[in-house]
Amino acid sequence: MADDHSGEHALIARYFKPLATDPGAFGLDDDAAVLEAPHGEEIVVTTDAIVEGVHFLADDPPDTVARKALRVNLSDLAAKGAQPAGFVLTLALRGADDAWLTAFARGLGEDAKLFDCPLLGGDTVSTPGPLTVSISAFGRVPAGKMVHRTGARPGDRVMVSGTIGDAALGLHVLKGDRIAEALAGDEAGRAMLVARYRVPQPRHALAAAVREFANAAMDVSDGLAGDLAKLCAASGVSALIDAPSIPKSAAAAYLLAQGVAGIETLVSGGDDYEILCTVTEGRLEAFAAEARRAGVALTSIGTVIAGAHAPRFLDEQGSEIVLKRLSFSHF
Amino acid sequence: MADDHSGEHALIARYFKPLATDPGAFGLDDDAAVLEAPHGEEIVVTTDAIVEGVHFLADDPPDTVARKALRVNLSDLAAKGAQPAGFVLTLALRGADDAWLTAFARGLGEDAKLFDCPLLGGDTVSTPGPLTVSISAFGRVPAGKMVHRTGARPGDRVMVSGTIGDAALGLHVLKGDRIAEALAGDEAGRAMLVARYRVPQPRHALAAAVREFANAAMDVSDGLAGDLAKLCAASGVSALIDAPSIPKSAAAAYLLAQGVAGIETLVSGGDDYEILCTVTEGRLEAFAAEARRAGVALTSIGTVIAGAHAPRFLDEQGSEIVLKRLSFSHF
Repeated sequence: MADDHSGEHALIARYFKPLATDPGAFGLDDDAAVLEAPHGEEIVVTTDAIVEGVHFLADDPPDTVARKALRVNLSDLAAKGAQPAGFVLTLALRGADDAWLTAFARGLGEDAKLFDCPLLGGDTVSTPGPLTVSISAFGRVPAGKMVHRTGARPGDRVMVSGTIGDAALGLHVLKGDRIAEALAGDEAGRAMLVARYRVPQPRHALAAAVREFANAAMDVSDGLAGDLAKLCAASGVSALIDAPSIPKSAAAAYLLAQGVAGIETLVSGGDDYEILCTVTEGRLEAFAAEARRAGVALTSIGTVIAGAHAPRFLDEQGSEIVLKRLSFSHF
Repeated sequence: MADDHSGEHALIARYFKPLATDPGAFGLDDDAAVLEAPHGEEIVVTTDAIVEGVHFLADDPPDTVARKALRVNLSDLAAKGAQPAGFVLTLALRGADDAWLTAFARGLGEDAKLFDCPLLGGDTVSTPGPLTVSISAFGRVPAGKMVHRTGARPGDRVMVSGTIGDAALGLHVLKGDRIAEALAGDEAGRAMLVARYRVPQPRHALAAAVREFANAAMDVSDGLAGDLAKLCAASGVSALIDAPSIPKSAAAAYLLAQGVAGIETLVSGGDDYEILCTVTEGRLEAFAAEARRAGVALTSIGTVIAGAHAPRFLDEQGSEIVLKRLSFSHF
């Protein structure tokens, strides 16, 4: 959780920060909390809910709803350098639709196995409202080794995993707007973007390397621009981002080249669930080598600088790109 | 979570039990899971959500909604013999009503302090549906000492904390039915019953004694009759309950004597949040002494017997009371 003053975060800062008096809560300034466990290990706890019509669509396949609910939490754990240890689930349902629940449970079970993150407990409640899946996930880190948002230092390189903006484009495809039309002849491209929206790829393979090399890290869930701004604010720094170097999928690059989507759509969209982190310049090569071993794409996109202003995104000519909005607000 | 086959529990057993492959999940047969933590301690995790119109009423004071959401989880921890360690919160809201949230957060903060159970993190999501508060709470126990549902043995005494049925009567009072009318002249009684519905009293003071003395334990959340049936089923035993010895508040005893409420209303109603446990006969006195020291009323209400049938409730004459329903279903 962040301490900026927009939407959810302002609400949390205002109402709930005073309650977070335990050192392990980090004043609610981070994505996860540590429950201290003796003997060299700590348990990282994270919680994230997804709501029908807000974070997923009513006709999304139920197994993808389950996967997304778990993976948005696993993404948090990976960005904190934690290995998954288990999760608890609260499911608010309008009714018990067998077919839906079967598919949901199957997706959840497959992912629990895939990520070695077993279901530990849960609660199911009835609601007349939209289906809501709330998950608290737990991870393990060596004591004191959770990676925070607060460690970025001027001179650090800003790194990001995977590609940025695909999920936001996938939502456009599902809505059938002009981005979907521009990809009319590219079924594979459309499917890839939709899959990126529906089923995030948590970068758990990178967790150990993040723990070893990152000075600061978080996952990108509400848009790269807004989340980088949060990380910088938490660290008391700013950043210069070389927009052309932001990693893009072929479909995203095509839409950008065609002028159908702008860079703002990519960096201010939500649901990337990639890892954003900063690394000391001299350790960049060793970190990159670890990422290659883990099979996760890792790209340097800019530099941490001193300052309190929001990170600046620069185009090919080094001119600042003015972003009208930084984040996708789920709230 | 239980393994009977009604409502929520059947749903969980059917869809989610296959996912619960970690030993610490206890096959979802218990109220809480253990996240193993090295060096002699384990972390107990429990999760419970409350939904507007289902578990609380839309016009309940917001601070009581917060207290109930946390306390239903603390009640689970106490029944498992765990000391509170912290909790995470997911709040699904239609909008951000300042006054409501302020009061909610105040109640939550006061209880977090009162029970030494700090907020560790959370998520707030937007929903067009009813307000839903989902909490995962964590507690600590010495390794291997969590109290399960499965340990009841024939000959054990069946014990219950506090008084039974007040919360169910409180809900009747709020609905203004003939139970409310029967208490028209007893404002204090009505207020007490409503408070018992809105703000459970988790028996954390009894947690250490439960850990030391109880062979099996759970909290009573869906009605004494149904929850005892779950405990007995988990332990592979049955029980004989002496209905007149079930502890009742003065208001409940009055309503019973007047014939306005029957014993079924008390033992099949929900929201008691008392501890139900079984204790070896020879250890009863020592347990009772501990409860007195802790300031928690503890009453022996019957005996565990061999058998697979549902527990039997006997009246003054030793005749079986036929209960038409065992539980209050929140689902």
